[in-house]
Amino acid sequence: MAEESGQGLGNGATALMSTLAGAGVDHVFANPGTSEMHLVQALEGETRIHPVLTLFEGVASGAADGFGRMAGRPAATLLHLGAGLGHATANLHNARRAGTPLINLVGDHARHHRPFDAPLDADIEGIARPFSSWVRTARSAHGLAQDGAEAVAAASTAHPGSLGSIATLAIPVDCAWGAAPGPRAPVAIPARAQVPEAAITAAASALRSGTLLLLDGDALTAEGQRWAAALAQKTGAAVSATTFPARVEQGPQLPALARLPYFPEDVQRALAGVHTILRVGAEAPVSFFAYEGVPSDLTPEGAQVLTLAERHEDVLDALARLGAALGVTLADAPAQGQRRPEVPSGALGARQVGATLAALLPEDAIVTVDSGGGGAAAVPCASAAPHSWLNLTGGSIGMGGPLATGAALACPGRPVFALLGDGGALYSLQALWTQARESLPVITLIYNNRRYNILDHEYRRLGINEVGPRAESLFDLSRPDVDFLALATGFGVPAVRVSEGPALAEAIGRALAAGGPHLIEVML
Amino acid sequence: MAEESGQGLGNGATALMSTLAGAGVDHVFANPGTSEMHLVQALEGETRIHPVLTLFEGVASGAADGFGRMAGRPAATLLHLGAGLGHATANLHNARRAGTPLINLVGDHARHHRPFDAPLDADIEGIARPFSSWVRTARSAHGLAQDGAEAVAAASTAHPGSLGSIATLAIPVDCAWGAAPGPRAPVAIPARAQVPEAAITAAASALRSGTLLLLDGDALTAEGQRWAAALAQKTGAAVSATTFPARVEQGPQLPALARLPYFPEDVQRALAGVHTILRVGAEAPVSFFAYEGVPSDLTPEGAQVLTLAERHEDVLDALARLGAALGVTLADAPAQGQRRPEVPSGALGARQVGATLAALLPEDAIVTVDSGGGGAAAVPCASAAPHSWLNLTGGSIGMGGPLATGAALACPGRPVFALLGDGGALYSLQALWTQARESLPVITLIYNNRRYNILDHEYRRLGINEVGPRAESLFDLSRPDVDFLALATGFGVPAVRVSEGPALAEAIGRALAAGGPHLIEVML
Repeated sequence: MAEESGQGLGNGATALMSTLAGAGVDHVFANPGTSEMHLVQALEGETRIHPVLTLFEGVASGAADGFGRMAGRPAATLLHLGAGLGHATANLHNARRAGTPLINLVGDHARHHRPFDAPLDADIEGIARPFSSWVRTARSAHGLAQDGAEAVAAASTAHPGSLGSIATLAIPVDCAWGAAPGPRAPVAIPARAQVPEAAITAAASALRSGTLLLLDGDALTAEGQRWAAALAQKTGAAVSATTFPARVEQGPQLPALARLPYFPEDVQRALAGVHTILRVGAEAPVSFFAYEGVPSDLTPEGAQVLTLAERHEDVLDALARLGAALGVTLADAPAQGQRRPEVPSGALGARQVGATLAALLPEDAIVTVDSGGGGAAAVPCASAAPHSWLNLTGGSIGMGGPLATGAALACPGRPVFALLGDGGALYSLQALWTQARESLPVITLIYNNRRYNILDHEYRRLGINEVGPRAESLFDLSRPDVDFLALATGFGVPAVRVSEGPALAEAIGRALAAGGPHLIEVML
Repeated sequence: MAEESGQGLGNGATALMSTLAGAGVDHVFANPGTSEMHLVQALEGETRIHPVLTLFEGVASGAADGFGRMAGRPAATLLHLGAGLGHATANLHNARRAGTPLINLVGDHARHHRPFDAPLDADIEGIARPFSSWVRTARSAHGLAQDGAEAVAAASTAHPGSLGSIATLAIPVDCAWGAAPGPRAPVAIPARAQVPEAAITAAASALRSGTLLLLDGDALTAEGQRWAAALAQKTGAAVSATTFPARVEQGPQLPALARLPYFPEDVQRALAGVHTILRVGAEAPVSFFAYEGVPSDLTPEGAQVLTLAERHEDVLDALARLGAALGVTLADAPAQGQRRPEVPSGALGARQVGATLAALLPEDAIVTVDSGGGGAAAVPCASAAPHSWLNLTGGSIGMGGPLATGAALACPGRPVFALLGDGGALYSLQALWTQARESLPVITLIYNNRRYNILDHEYRRLGINEVGPRAESLFDLSRPDVDFLALATGFGVPAVRVSEGPALAEAIGRALAAGGPHLIEVML
């Protein structure tokens, strides 16, 4: 299938980029190679799109996730064949669990070149499929722009199990370089489905003491939380978020909000006495991992599970209709009011770090969390100041730094805090460099306990109280100690090391005043 | 399917590790999580296996590749579910192209837990398949040891297209914790197939001036090269290695060996006048990338392609039989003799770095190469001292540091040099930490030109001589400059920066004398 050459204006690549820009895609997180050079050339001319270079594809996919969570529309990655996509997959896993709208643009060999099985050839569709809801390989330069328009629509459409989608478009280079007509119009995105009236009626009659409204997705917007709290106040029901929701709005202006714990026994305790779980954009609770003798399904025995709305349905509409049915309005929702702890003196544990952050948290911040213990101990932030809180969703640690990078680009002017465990940070610390290049106001806190601390807990759950030296060698991050100050300096980000509350507070204050990225290594 | 619990001695995990050790697997490159805790516990007791912690799974897979290339038998990775495997895939792509024997052990959720679609759940088999020749999910604790024995055999068996295989075994945690009988015996590995006599006869009559013996795989061992050179000397044929073979033995004791260039036009020039290509463990030459107006197939027009032996067949036996048919012996092979350049004075380019390394290369070193320009310019090493040379095989940069790590563990006592471009090094610099922990004699040279230099070349091939600012932002690695000294220090590796030949020579000399890992940032 021969196509005339279309270098410069008028090839598939320029039509694609123009189509993406027209459909609202304005950020591309890139780590391109030879097969993406025409796409890079097209970005040179398409000034509506900001190209952001990353040093590792896991930063690109994690940043696109952070961007999508905050902007509510897809950013794109630009990746180099199957190997580049492979590096991106771990954070695509997290993005898939978050339900983030996201587009992968993956360069591929020319179609006539693929039968030769050149060294970089790989099964791009096969690599993409476990992480994507929509996968396509472009088949012509003429069709590439339409492929792009459909990728944006696929990424932006809520569907069962997800608020958005990961759409992966493989682009053989001859489709990029071949001549093509101009851009294509955006493809219409279907509205969220309204839930049937029967779901409202059933939920209305189920709300009473012993019923738990379990929230995720849009139910964790400010509006969703207010509806849930107003309904609970009226009926005696309880409210909780799931364990690791993608995004939660928090602050004094909002109702207090419980969250399900991590370990299954703790979830069971939290759910004791619950006879009805009402799912509001949330899945029923399951154990994060399987353990011997511990059930996977954490719904209390005998309890019923009802569904007000699935995550991909119009959750806010369902809550409003349920409110109307029960005579409740948004104004009935109680605000928890502001509480700021004091900056703790003395040595720092995760709890003291959380209190210090809560003491200083500026209005309108974004907080990304990649440390289980650190995140759990930062609960005092919830009533300190209005902010957006982004969780590790899929359990693949190393996403917090990339997530913060994308969130900062999605929300210019909002300060961003990345709360990272030392082990997790080391998967994707290259995010710091992109933060420096883009002058992003991201303050990274490293919780440095010099080990994969969670594995100590998990190993002891096997009943082993003495960790032998060979197992210890797989949990221990000393020998040698990792020096995060040096690493941050290497990536062009100013850094400081602290071990006491007042020093941490001073470091946060100075970083906020200076603007731009900073790293604070907190020795626990 | 209920199985009795088997914590401690006698569970599936201990039977597996004991089976792997019995089959000769003695290194596990690990980044485990909760679902791998029983496998970690089994490693505590199985002292024949050395567990090596990596901070990022791409280091684990790249190190297992380096180990396998040098040891000729598989090492294992130990990875955390689909996300951990995902991070490993880019270097698995390189290992697959290298034909390296390699086993991935991937922990998975318990089988009864999978229907609950817990956050870390992913399609492990789907992720593994594009990179693996053998994929299996264990189905019982009783069967896990046999699965392991078969994985070792699968990884160790040459097959069409490859010297070895990547075997991926997913291990549901209940198969690890369930009671199991003891280890299983190794599975027999079939011998390489001998080529038919007709291939020998055809090759014997084809060898003359204008015929090229194209070598890869076992043909690039010392013995293979000697046979090829002896045959060429007798018949007037020429000899060349492919562009990026996985491993080449080099040194003054061996014949001089040409290598096919990288860019397709250069390959065409190198093959001008060739009327017959005789494949000796090598594929016929194809362009690395596709370009407009450039053919993918680089076999000269009208030339015939003959096959002495496929890579998975007994290449050395075929060469010996061809030698016998033509009355040639191994002793006929000419040695190229030792030539060491002087250490260049003045500023360093890639060529001067190559000369400096050649001037100082110790006997029996291993060199891993992840920089296209750097590798090509290090040709003088070939006649400087006997050494093993390991290439980037699949074009996924970022493998050189991990490769050096595994090669050093496979060959205690041999000094290792990792020649890395700055861009490539930044994908997987965490390898330095593992080198420090294991006190490995790896000397990393960073060719720091502060950009993805190859992309400049590739972009200009589009006919663009002025790179605009937005494209430039995707090639440029300054703004901010990456400080490799600081990064190495952060990972516990001593480092120095040089910009002139004598300083580089002094730094190499000091690193060799000190032992252990060092990084030398070479400013180009």
